[in-house]
Amino acid sequence: MQCPDGPGDGGFADTGGSMAYTIGRIASEIGAEAHGDLDIEVDGVAEPAEAGPRHLAMAATPRFLEQIAEGSARAAFIAEGSDWRTLGVEAAIVHPRPRYAMSGLTRMMDGGEGWEDGVHPSAVVHEDAVLGQGVSIGPLSFVGAGARIGDGVAIGPQCHVGAGARIGAGSLLREGVRIAARVSVGARFIAQPGATLGGDGFSFVTPDTSDVESARRTLGGTAAGKAQKWERIHSLGDVEIGDDVEIGANSTVDRGTVRATRVGDRTKIDNFVAIGHNAQVGRDCLICAHSGVAGSTRVGDNVVLGGMTGVSDNIFVGDNVIAGGGSRIMSSVPAGRVVLGYPAMPMDAAIDVFKRLRRLGRLFGDVAELKRLAGGGR
Amino acid sequence: MQCPDGPGDGGFADTGGSMAYTIGRIASEIGAEAHGDLDIEVDGVAEPAEAGPRHLAMAATPRFLEQIAEGSARAAFIAEGSDWRTLGVEAAIVHPRPRYAMSGLTRMMDGGEGWEDGVHPSAVVHEDAVLGQGVSIGPLSFVGAGARIGDGVAIGPQCHVGAGARIGAGSLLREGVRIAARVSVGARFIAQPGATLGGDGFSFVTPDTSDVESARRTLGGTAAGKAQKWERIHSLGDVEIGDDVEIGANSTVDRGTVRATRVGDRTKIDNFVAIGHNAQVGRDCLICAHSGVAGSTRVGDNVVLGGMTGVSDNIFVGDNVIAGGGSRIMSSVPAGRVVLGYPAMPMDAAIDVFKRLRRLGRLFGDVAELKRLAGGGR
Amino acid sequence: MQCPDGPGDGGFADTGGSMAYTIGRIASEIGAEAHGDLDIEVDGVAEPAEAGPRHLAMAATPRFLEQIAEGSARAAFIAEGSDWRTLGVEAAIVHPRPRYAMSGLTRMMDGGEGWEDGVHPSAVVHEDAVLGQGVSIGPLSFVGAGARIGDGVAIGPQCHVGAGARIGAGSLLREGVRIAARVSVGARFIAQPGATLGGDGFSFVTPDTSDVESARRTLGGTAAGKAQKWERIHSLGDVEIGDDVEIGANSTVDRGTVRATRVGDRTKIDNFVAIGHNAQVGRDCLICAHSGVAGSTRVGDNVVLGGMTGVSDNIFVGDNVIAGGGSRIMSSVPAGRVVLGYPAMPMDAAIDVFKRLRRLGRLFGDVAELKRLAGGGR
Repeated sequence: MQCPDGPGDGGFADTGGSMAYTIGRIASEIGAEAHGDLDIEVDGVAEPAEAGPRHLAMAATPRFLEQIAEGSARAAFIAEGSDWRTLGVEAAIVHPRPRYAMSGLTRMMDGGEGWEDGVHPSAVVHEDAVLGQGVSIGPLSFVGAGARIGDGVAIGPQCHVGAGARIGAGSLLREGVRIAARVSVGARFIAQPGATLGGDGFSFVTPDTSDVESARRTLGGTAAGKAQKWERIHSLGDVEIGDDVEIGANSTVDRGTVRATRVGDRTKIDNFVAIGHNAQVGRDCLICAHSGVAGSTRVGDNVVLGGMTGVSDNIFVGDNVIAGGGSRIMSSVPAGRVVLGYPAMPMDAAIDVFKRLRRLGRLFGDVAELKRLAGGGR
Repeated sequence: MQCPDGPGDGGFADTGGSMAYTIGRIASEIGAEAHGDLDIEVDGVAEPAEAGPRHLAMAATPRFLEQIAEGSARAAFIAEGSDWRTLGVEAAIVHPRPRYAMSGLTRMMDGGEGWEDGVHPSAVVHEDAVLGQGVSIGPLSFVGAGARIGDGVAIGPQCHVGAGARIGAGSLLREGVRIAARVSVGARFIAQPGATLGGDGFSFVTPDTSDVESARRTLGGTAAGKAQKWERIHSLGDVEIGDDVEIGANSTVDRGTVRATRVGDRTKIDNFVAIGHNAQVGRDCLICAHSGVAGSTRVGDNVVLGGMTGVSDNIFVGDNVIAGGGSRIMSSVPAGRVVLGYPAMPMDAAIDVFKRLRRLGRLFGDVAELKRLAGGGR
Repeated sequence: MQCPDGPGDGGFADTGGSMAYTIGRIASEIGAEAHGDLDIEVDGVAEPAEAGPRHLAMAATPRFLEQIAEGSARAAFIAEGSDWRTLGVEAAIVHPRPRYAMSGLTRMMDGGEGWEDGVHPSAVVHEDAVLGQGVSIGPLSFVGAGARIGDGVAIGPQCHVGAGARIGAGSLLREGVRIAARVSVGARFIAQPGATLGGDGFSFVTPDTSDVESARRTLGGTAAGKAQKWERIHSLGDVEIGDDVEIGANSTVDRGTVRATRVGDRTKIDNFVAIGHNAQVGRDCLICAHSGVAGSTRVGDNVVLGGMTGVSDNIFVGDNVIAGGGSRIMSSVPAGRVVLGYPAMPMDAAIDVFKRLRRLGRLFGDVAELKRLAGGGR
């Protein structure tokens, strides 16, 4: 272990206690306008009805504006166009795109996990691991031989960083994150609890052509029913994660077979997402919970997959594709398409199908009647 | 750490060894009738064909009744209406609703995990944590500063209880459970291995209107394809879990953004379920494996979601709704409705659609024929 | 703890460093033909364009053959029928079924996790656990009382093996695997990170007939809306896993209620798969990511479930069944059938439905036109 002597300012390793900010300072830091008594201090946010005098009441929608009177906030965060003077507060922060302003505001007010600085004595850190300045490693965590942990990385309790893994500067690993040997992640990575990088890919092969291969070729029929013994293809490839990536609780990214499985810069991944072996996910994507990208599939940049979207193996999803929740993407999708459904089709077509499904009974009735008429007319 | 001096009777921390019970005592404790030799002792249950002389043969269905002769049980658990004297056993426990009686019976016979009392020396428990009477904390577990652990709580090996978290009396955390900082759970909570409460919500925003926002508004079309940089909205809200809740293996409940994400009393959640940020799940719900409740959605009381049910964000699912397996609930559902399908619709309508889908080919044929006739008739 | 004195040769516990092999030896070990300079040494594999002089270029497809010139490999692995002399390499390994040959090749070249031999001092191993020859147990792992660990088993960091569990010889538990008390797994088991065996089954019952039971019987209608209190049925059954089984990252197999939940020999399970309580999964199956087999369902031998396949509870899936991705198997499936869809139907029928769904708008138009004609003709 080298260099664990930094000042321990990972940006995450704070006390969990809340800091106080004036309304003026908040507005200035998040680029919003402030009105009224800018010296009012708050140390947290709350929904308006639940807000106390030291809360900033979050009231960016009409519904929440009405609730301000139910609480006791002295200051509110509101959308442009509302007159703060009518709300019964002494100060207001006003922003034209409140949802965006929430980003800066919540970052300021985030109390963190209450972790301590430095390397906890119960952590097992291999003597050959290389730790940057200000790294913190929580209780009962493990860091393997040759792992390289960048400056300011905060590793929570019970995490695993395998031999030869690399964690970029400023990253945060929440409790129980598992980074396997040789996995490489970029700067400012955030891994939610239980996120798991570098499991082996799910790749098996039979000595002869398997029933699955046949079924895929013929699209159906009956399985031949011969016994098939699955031989394992080991995963020799790594996992490579770009900068500013976030991975959700208990999600998995598997190792590649020969090349690395890759997730591009700034892509955000929700809980229970499986990124299969060899998959190449682009930049600036958003992949919602329970989605899966199967083996060797390429996903472009700026792609959004709604919850429970399945993407088949060995296909291509173009840049800027958006898939609605529950979509089953079974063949490649050209760039820019908005899709939905099982199987996935253009979203307007899917919504049209959804509507027609509900009228299918009537259609069957109409056709039966037409048949009767046609038969009777003969 | 305070007060870890209780007698360690968490109800779960037993030896894993089985206890012996007489037929008479079992029947009395679970409110069933007993017949025959009530002094016969059993120390476990088994399916009839696999039962030995110290097993209670579980034979509440006709199929299992027939198998009693294949095993060597001396006593059987049967449904009302069967004549125990014809079954070749010396005693029988009889209940009008055997499945319900299973609840009491299996609770009596549960051998537990074999955990030891007290706080294991390898556990890392912060000196400011507050432990109730009879708390046990397993090997290699972590309990953070200010955490409050209620009386009789049994925390298994390798669990995480973050700073300021609260665990209600009589709760059980199986191995590897992760409770984040500030999460609050009620009494008699049961968390299966790897259950994860308090990951950050999946909430990102772009500086300008994103393609996803546009697609949701227009329900389709083509994505504009502009680059979009996702800014993180931090989760300042907590997680609040009611009394008598159970959460399945590796399931996740994320923190809210401003308010808490909440799960009501007595709700039971299976494996791989994702409860998103700000979601409010009611009381007495049953949520089966692989289901997801997306961000800010409200689910009423007594709701049942079958396996792999997806519920979209920002909608409302009324009390007593039942969703069949695989349903995709994409818009609010009124109370009491039974739904199924993608998209979810009333279950009878969905089953009607399912049947008609299989006859769709014939319908197309009929219409082609009608068109031919109509064309020919002109 | 007994017998941890073996030589620690679990086959997995190597250094993570790569070994060098000659082309001749590789070909001989995997049963392939070798051509050219058989003494060329490689110590890894790579895609052709990324290959260096000590890599074996993996070029079994035409696309990859073309890329050999872009890298600097001296040797290539190619499919039968390509002329290695035209590829600019000095040696080649040739196999008639390259994908199958990958199995042996990747096994040879697998560098492992870099784990150390023996029992790490930070592991908590109960004095009554029984360890075979050459067992390794990683940092911060737990092994409970009466657990029996077979010869050559490699247990990674932060794993859990509960009281009375049995792990067959030659098994590998990757980091963070959780094996509950009394779970039994066969020889050569492989568990990916976070795999979780032996959580309690999801089994609840109401004192009276519940709305769910009614809805299942009547297939719909409206829920009665009475309050229902779910009583827990404890899981007294175990989990029994055969030989040569692999279980994916964060997947779960729950305990049975009375009998054991079972997974047969050589079955391979991907990430996020839930095998419910009492389920009986056969031999030689392949179950892809995000799939679920619900409680008490039997799955035959040689079954393949594509990603996100849901199988309802209490049904039977016959031998050799293949289900395409996203299938919802809601009723029993006879042996040998290839299915797809929601609900699952024979794959050719499902693909026919998929095509017709896209033409449903036209069909409605045709019928409207026919109705107009029929009305006008009257």
